[in-house]
Amino acid sequence: VFVDTRIIGVDLGGTRMRVALLDADYNLLNRVEEPTNAHEGPDKVIPRLLDLIASVVDAADVPVAGIGISSPGPIEPETGAILSPPNLPGWVDVPLGRIVQERWPDIPVFLGNDANVAALAEVYNGAAIGHKHAIYITVSTGIGGGIVIDGQLFLGGRGLAGEIGHTVLIADGERVSSLEEEAAGPALAEYAARRLQAGEESIIREMVGGDLEQVTGKIVGQAAQQGDTLALEAVARTGRLVGYGIASLMHLFNPTIFVIGGGVSNLGDLLFEPMHEAARSMVIDPAYYDHAAIVPAALGEDVAIIGAAALALQELKQA
Amino acid sequence: VFVDTRIIGVDLGGTRMRVALLDADYNLLNRVEEPTNAHEGPDKVIPRLLDLIASVVDAADVPVAGIGISSPGPIEPETGAILSPPNLPGWVDVPLGRIVQERWPDIPVFLGNDANVAALAEVYNGAAIGHKHAIYITVSTGIGGGIVIDGQLFLGGRGLAGEIGHTVLIADGERVSSLEEEAAGPALAEYAARRLQAGEESIIREMVGGDLEQVTGKIVGQAAQQGDTLALEAVARTGRLVGYGIASLMHLFNPTIFVIGGGVSNLGDLLFEPMHEAARSMVIDPAYYDHAAIVPAALGEDVAIIGAAALALQELKQA
Repeated sequence: VFVDTRIIGVDLGGTRMRVALLDADYNLLNRVEEPTNAHEGPDKVIPRLLDLIASVVDAADVPVAGIGISSPGPIEPETGAILSPPNLPGWVDVPLGRIVQERWPDIPVFLGNDANVAALAEVYNGAAIGHKHAIYITVSTGIGGGIVIDGQLFLGGRGLAGEIGHTVLIADGERVSSLEEEAAGPALAEYAARRLQAGEESIIREMVGGDLEQVTGKIVGQAAQQGDTLALEAVARTGRLVGYGIASLMHLFNPTIFVIGGGVSNLGDLLFEPMHEAARSMVIDPAYYDHAAIVPAALGEDVAIIGAAALALQELKQA
Repeated sequence: VFVDTRIIGVDLGGTRMRVALLDADYNLLNRVEEPTNAHEGPDKVIPRLLDLIASVVDAADVPVAGIGISSPGPIEPETGAILSPPNLPGWVDVPLGRIVQERWPDIPVFLGNDANVAALAEVYNGAAIGHKHAIYITVSTGIGGGIVIDGQLFLGGRGLAGEIGHTVLIADGERVSSLEEEAAGPALAEYAARRLQAGEESIIREMVGGDLEQVTGKIVGQAAQQGDTLALEAVARTGRLVGYGIASLMHLFNPTIFVIGGGVSNLGDLLFEPMHEAARSMVIDPAYYDHAAIVPAALGEDVAIIGAAALALQELKQA
């Protein structure tokens, strides 16, 4: 059925937008990109995105069977509207799915949240091939997720499921905060900066020229890779907290694999060891931990394009 | 297809075991029960359970199409073994499903976790009729759950999903604890006892004759219903913590209804108002809260029998 199928994968990111033509085996046949310049707002950005898609559609060797779009933020499935995405400030309720569909009325258009479609990409063409129950977690400036159940992207009752970063992790008296608020890149930076402020020694102080406002998650990660004790503890704390989140997800979803992506995941064992240890320490039965792999993502910057194409292929197969 | 179908529903509880004959509309046609005496261990209890089931099978007016069993604790789906259930101390890896199947080789036997099957019962014959995406949470001596996705009980990759009580709710430095450890009946009692110990006024002190060891969740609930300030705050705290758990589940599963059962849920608004408020306060988009009802369970002590029968009917329909 899908011999010679061509799919367009679109990645609308906060900094860059990428469009590619793919075949049904997820080979990228043609790929273009340009800066998003999200601050210009949807009225300027969307026409440029449509032109970018058109350049790939028009150059396709066989007719395009579907267009899959990866976008930040929760998406209202009935209207294809992007709901207040943190990476696209000012984009409120933009009906991107409908806009693209109106431009190409004969090509089915599918819109998915970036972390959600990344989960599909890893299951169909990445680190979780062969797994029917998989959870993808991206740890970078935020914490996003995608949940695959029985080989399908799980979206819940109204399409908004899988927002792993917004689970409540700390509810201790006055302090209530989410996994993302406690463990994503900015939290990693804040934690380190707080200890630096208190006068602790660390090479981070030098790296930012004494200006603690300049501490980022990336810098803390670099310091950890150089063996800095404070930075190592900060990274381990993030790993531990993500590990507790994983323990929760093990009890709720009992998947057979977790795939960890995002910039922070590049820290390898410094992050993964405390993550494993925390998850293992909190399961009520070893079966939850023993039968669930926890692995780094296999796909790089094209993960959203591949995931958008996987979403389109999945939906077309069911139609 | 299911005209005149007869199903056996079995509820193996920590204190009582109940067996009933049901029709496909969940009418209870015949019902027997006796104390479990779980302390006698599986070697004594299981033969008595088999006799109880046999008495109902033999008295059925038409042949029995299936036997559904509700049991405490996580269940290994491949072997039908009960894994270390907290309500049946000493029952480790008891292959109850296989034992019952061997006794009635011609009747398909299905085994489910008590809170999981309660979710099915509420969806098919209780407070969540018509909902395809529903989450059941029972708050009593523990916190259990059951998750229904697309009208089916969700069990995850290896049958162990839905253990809502074991999600990590507090991960603050040295203190790491689960929703169950923080919010179930025993935690409600401990919280009140701690404040009483510190010298605060409350009618609870009188109710337990000054012996703080005697404080239970039930007593705290009774004091709250009489307007006792400390007890009201303790109940509100439990409501708030369960509400944070609900907020997490809204982001992960985006269901259209939550059904709250278990003894603690009988406290009504004293519990439900802080629960609603906490859930509402933590969602990243109003859509998560606005489209999800939070309602008390509709079924009483027969919920596990009805759920066990619903599990059997669901599996038979798919066979």
